[in-house]
Amino acid sequence: MVYTAAVSGASGYAGGEVLRLLANHPHVEVGAITGHSNVGQRLGELQPHLHPLADKVLTETTAEALAGHDVVFLALPHGASGELAAQLGEEVVVIDAAADHRLESAQAWEKFYSSKHQGTWPYGLPELPGQRHKLTGATRIAVPGCYPTTIMLGLAPALAAGLVQPEDVVVVAATGTSGAGKSLKPHLLGSEVMGGMSPYGVGGVHRHTPEIEQGLSWAAGTEVQVSFTPTLAPMPRGILATSTAKLVPGTTEAQLREAFAAHYDAEPFVHLLPEGQWPATKQVIGSNHVTIQLAVDAHAGRAIIVSASDNLTKGTAGGAVQSMNLALGLEETTGLNLLGVSP
Amino acid sequence: MVYTAAVSGASGYAGGEVLRLLANHPHVEVGAITGHSNVGQRLGELQPHLHPLADKVLTETTAEALAGHDVVFLALPHGASGELAAQLGEEVVVIDAAADHRLESAQAWEKFYSSKHQGTWPYGLPELPGQRHKLTGATRIAVPGCYPTTIMLGLAPALAAGLVQPEDVVVVAATGTSGAGKSLKPHLLGSEVMGGMSPYGVGGVHRHTPEIEQGLSWAAGTEVQVSFTPTLAPMPRGILATSTAKLVPGTTEAQLREAFAAHYDAEPFVHLLPEGQWPATKQVIGSNHVTIQLAVDAHAGRAIIVSASDNLTKGTAGGAVQSMNLALGLEETTGLNLLGVSP
Amino acid sequence: MVYTAAVSGASGYAGGEVLRLLANHPHVEVGAITGHSNVGQRLGELQPHLHPLADKVLTETTAEALAGHDVVFLALPHGASGELAAQLGEEVVVIDAAADHRLESAQAWEKFYSSKHQGTWPYGLPELPGQRHKLTGATRIAVPGCYPTTIMLGLAPALAAGLVQPEDVVVVAATGTSGAGKSLKPHLLGSEVMGGMSPYGVGGVHRHTPEIEQGLSWAAGTEVQVSFTPTLAPMPRGILATSTAKLVPGTTEAQLREAFAAHYDAEPFVHLLPEGQWPATKQVIGSNHVTIQLAVDAHAGRAIIVSASDNLTKGTAGGAVQSMNLALGLEETTGLNLLGVSP
Amino acid sequence: MVYTAAVSGASGYAGGEVLRLLANHPHVEVGAITGHSNVGQRLGELQPHLHPLADKVLTETTAEALAGHDVVFLALPHGASGELAAQLGEEVVVIDAAADHRLESAQAWEKFYSSKHQGTWPYGLPELPGQRHKLTGATRIAVPGCYPTTIMLGLAPALAAGLVQPEDVVVVAATGTSGAGKSLKPHLLGSEVMGGMSPYGVGGVHRHTPEIEQGLSWAAGTEVQVSFTPTLAPMPRGILATSTAKLVPGTTEAQLREAFAAHYDAEPFVHLLPEGQWPATKQVIGSNHVTIQLAVDAHAGRAIIVSASDNLTKGTAGGAVQSMNLALGLEETTGLNLLGVSP
Repeated sequence: MVYTAAVSGASGYAGGEVLRLLANHPHVEVGAITGHSNVGQRLGELQPHLHPLADKVLTETTAEALAGHDVVFLALPHGASGELAAQLGEEVVVIDAAADHRLESAQAWEKFYSSKHQGTWPYGLPELPGQRHKLTGATRIAVPGCYPTTIMLGLAPALAAGLVQPEDVVVVAATGTSGAGKSLKPHLLGSEVMGGMSPYGVGGVHRHTPEIEQGLSWAAGTEVQVSFTPTLAPMPRGILATSTAKLVPGTTEAQLREAFAAHYDAEPFVHLLPEGQWPATKQVIGSNHVTIQLAVDAHAGRAIIVSASDNLTKGTAGGAVQSMNLALGLEETTGLNLLGVSP
Repeated sequence: MVYTAAVSGASGYAGGEVLRLLANHPHVEVGAITGHSNVGQRLGELQPHLHPLADKVLTETTAEALAGHDVVFLALPHGASGELAAQLGEEVVVIDAAADHRLESAQAWEKFYSSKHQGTWPYGLPELPGQRHKLTGATRIAVPGCYPTTIMLGLAPALAAGLVQPEDVVVVAATGTSGAGKSLKPHLLGSEVMGGMSPYGVGGVHRHTPEIEQGLSWAAGTEVQVSFTPTLAPMPRGILATSTAKLVPGTTEAQLREAFAAHYDAEPFVHLLPEGQWPATKQVIGSNHVTIQLAVDAHAGRAIIVSASDNLTKGTAGGAVQSMNLALGLEETTGLNLLGVSP
Repeated sequence: MVYTAAVSGASGYAGGEVLRLLANHPHVEVGAITGHSNVGQRLGELQPHLHPLADKVLTETTAEALAGHDVVFLALPHGASGELAAQLGEEVVVIDAAADHRLESAQAWEKFYSSKHQGTWPYGLPELPGQRHKLTGATRIAVPGCYPTTIMLGLAPALAAGLVQPEDVVVVAATGTSGAGKSLKPHLLGSEVMGGMSPYGVGGVHRHTPEIEQGLSWAAGTEVQVSFTPTLAPMPRGILATSTAKLVPGTTEAQLREAFAAHYDAEPFVHLLPEGQWPATKQVIGSNHVTIQLAVDAHAGRAIIVSASDNLTKGTAGGAVQSMNLALGLEETTGLNLLGVSP
Repeated sequence: MVYTAAVSGASGYAGGEVLRLLANHPHVEVGAITGHSNVGQRLGELQPHLHPLADKVLTETTAEALAGHDVVFLALPHGASGELAAQLGEEVVVIDAAADHRLESAQAWEKFYSSKHQGTWPYGLPELPGQRHKLTGATRIAVPGCYPTTIMLGLAPALAAGLVQPEDVVVVAATGTSGAGKSLKPHLLGSEVMGGMSPYGVGGVHRHTPEIEQGLSWAAGTEVQVSFTPTLAPMPRGILATSTAKLVPGTTEAQLREAFAAHYDAEPFVHLLPEGQWPATKQVIGSNHVTIQLAVDAHAGRAIIVSASDNLTKGTAGGAVQSMNLALGLEETTGLNLLGVSP
């Protein structure tokens, strides 16, 4: 069985990674690829690393161009997907890599995105409690943000098991520059990013904050409150998240390890590493893997959990393909792997 | 007036940076440079960036070699400086870049360094409340660690002003690889570090934790408790520290800004940036500058303070030279500057 | 049909890349993995990016450990493979990633490697004229060096077509640091390589020089003389080779393009890019692809040919697996692809 | 004595480096700083590493703004400096970092820059034979390009001494990304440059080619012909040039070393390294130093000369300040140094 897939935003980083994974997927054939400012160009000029697709040509992103495929991936700026999706048949599997349909709270949406809420779609993170079954056979899926994926997978088991407190979670994470997309901003120039680190979106204003709190609240069964600070690191890909939460008094490291083991031992893509090994983004580049390790800081009374992912793979396109597999009834791991490209 | 200075550990990164600054210092002449495994080699082979000193030859690190100078810089592994210093005259200004004489608590020393405490010397961070006057005319100075320098300068004004709570400070910091020295360890190879980030010393076990708590407790006037997680970033130099503390209820961002302004407006090397500008390590590479910015996250109830430094300059060798200036009665800023090398 | 493969040198970069490719190969099962200083360790500790193989344990590299497999990959220091291979059955496919069996000239071997020549095996670069048929069904294969692969593929078509002169070829190439292996040398530390470039092996002394001249002489049908300068670039992977040769008077760019097209149009892994597009190492990271572009500098009377590869994939492990496929009678492209991981 | 200096293009990399050096110069005070799209902004927002100048505000680049200073630095796009300079008094020292006044040949200018030739000014590379005396007291100076500086200093002594042949010089050089300026082009994004190398301007079309040939022809006393290929390396600063030329038969390495020694032993900023040490860009970052080493490849009949510089310092702003010192009758080395910032 082969499904056809259209990919919008094909000239960007998210679209490019979706195409890289689809080109290797045994049950998908890439159909239309669309863009806007690059319409008419060969993909080979825009994404020269995708040689098998080099001769495909970008067309304008319209409902007509995307129609007629079994699956449509939307990798567009926020705000564009709702209207487009409405013009596609309900039987088409639409997978949105933008934020538009992630948040349940219209209030949170409007506060952080300053626009009208477009509704909520099944959330493409099957490893989060209660989500996988909603994705099986779904035809509309909201792919989680890269930070939320990495951070929530690091904290969910501890919160779900009631071993850490939900009200003062502190997260500091570093992302590679592809997380900012291919946008032409001075601070993203190579000369500016190589050799240095800087923060951004400090003080709870990053748009991923409500999404992280939403998913963690689902896991905890109670409201979770997060202080989140993102930083930009001099690397193209990868997220390293350091998440800390106050221990429920009496919690031991062994209890935490058991909770993570119970949560993830059957998961194909998320793993607690053996004791003594710590996540590093280079372990997971190009793969759909999330690696996790934890420590108890008894002196400070906090659990410290570190998780690593590739922001473009499990954090975006890999998560999207994994969700597509569930939607289509394929084996969840089809076309994805656990082999990072390193060093 | 010209003082003579000897530098031990001259083949390492800390020693090299001390030499770079001294070669530019108008009142210092570099005398003996010493090492161990590289004895007999020209400095030009070991530190080819220090051309004006290229023909100097390393001798063995002994009290005899170091004696006869006005100032002696010790950039040795922990544990070596106490005995050496005891053999140098009391009138010699001995500046120790290792940790040996930083901690007041023998108990903390023994817990984190597994060896006998060697006593406490004046602490070379004049910007910390109560420290500058102890450095003026001192003949023994302990240079602070690079993480403590960066983190304490970010938190001290808020704690000293009583605007944040001392009991649940959470810090995550990223360092460039030179912070780990020139040691030949597999995880420090270029192939391993380029393109990735990883944590280390997680769970309160990093040796800088008690030093950070000591200095912040001096500033706060009460015991401060810190959860500190260091991470390794793919850059040669620089520290970016994200420090968060629970707000004392009612604290506003304006109050915090005023506290930082009052604390640092007269300081030559530490500055709160104008609103809207955030620290980035590339602003301060090669300089003795520490830049700071803060935000109040009302939702999470925390102050988020970000500070940046060059771990080898203000974090080590620049702090050492600044302290030397105070010890010798020179203008504190002599031979140091605020001009980062960027991009 | 599934073949078993043993991999020696499993803790190094070449061995790790062989394992990454084999873990994805549909007709190979990884058997013994061997090393020396890391015997007894889980692969997960040494190569954490290879999660599916994490629980395999390294054993000592001996003929006994390697025996009993259909294929044996040797990724050992130079000088070790001859003796080992002699103890393996003649029916075993032995693929040597070291230089031992690449050179036909015992004199060249002895000059550049200062040891006794071990004989010559079929040369694992099927794209070089006259080589592919020697690999089909072979049981001993010498994998080319990473520089020779990249440089020879860039020059061979021009020399074979008689469009450039063989006597004054000048090549300058840049490699990522993994080309130097995982050896603990000071100049390979991250602090030393990030942010800088340096040359090495200048003046015709690099060991790949005679190998490049040998392969190009095969292609040209006459002796080719090369000046080769390698440089170390601040990136983990990738080779960018700039090869120039004097034009045979009257040669046009169109003639050169035709020669390259004729040479490579049927090749799965080597491609002349469309006019206007230039090779970049990021196009090919993690893939078995070599991309090429050329220009005629009429003023200087030279053809300039630029080629890019991943030194660990097509330059080492991918070339090895491609050769294995030919040796086993499998489709040459099995388990390999043209999808680089970028950005 | 203090001179006033105006700096145009103050928001760019060349202008920023000029300002960094002037802020440290004992005989210069920075006056007007000008730009275009950033008029009205504080320098602290645009060049946050230049803290001592942070409160200066950019004004529009006009002759009025630049007038009234002793020295005017022009760091503008090509084509803008001729007209501006004509409006400044003849007694003002005008130092142009653009290419406009470098070439003597109007024909070469028109071919490579497609615009009308603006005349030729004294060439700001005092280490090139016959240039220094033209700079002493000059009021119009053309600063050489960064590639030409690095390449010509590597080849001039060998050509001047008649030890290598002028007709088939081959140069391949790598530059850091700041060489491309702060322009917002997709291929200069951090995500695109980190971890990879690529060529550009291949085939003799790079605009620095005629400039290199001009300077080398001055040195050789005969026409020199160069094949030049530039490449972009994943680092912010630095140029590493590999220059090769056919040996005049009988030339020995000792003769070459003597020629370089004779040429550079009295030069403050250019040095042949001791035998066995090779240039690396990290030796010279932030300094005005050019380091050189050479080898004779007897087999290939070529001299291989490697030279390293910081493209923004000696390659642009340092060369400009050095020229200014000569123009003003100051000590040539004032405000410049040989201390690289490394690692």
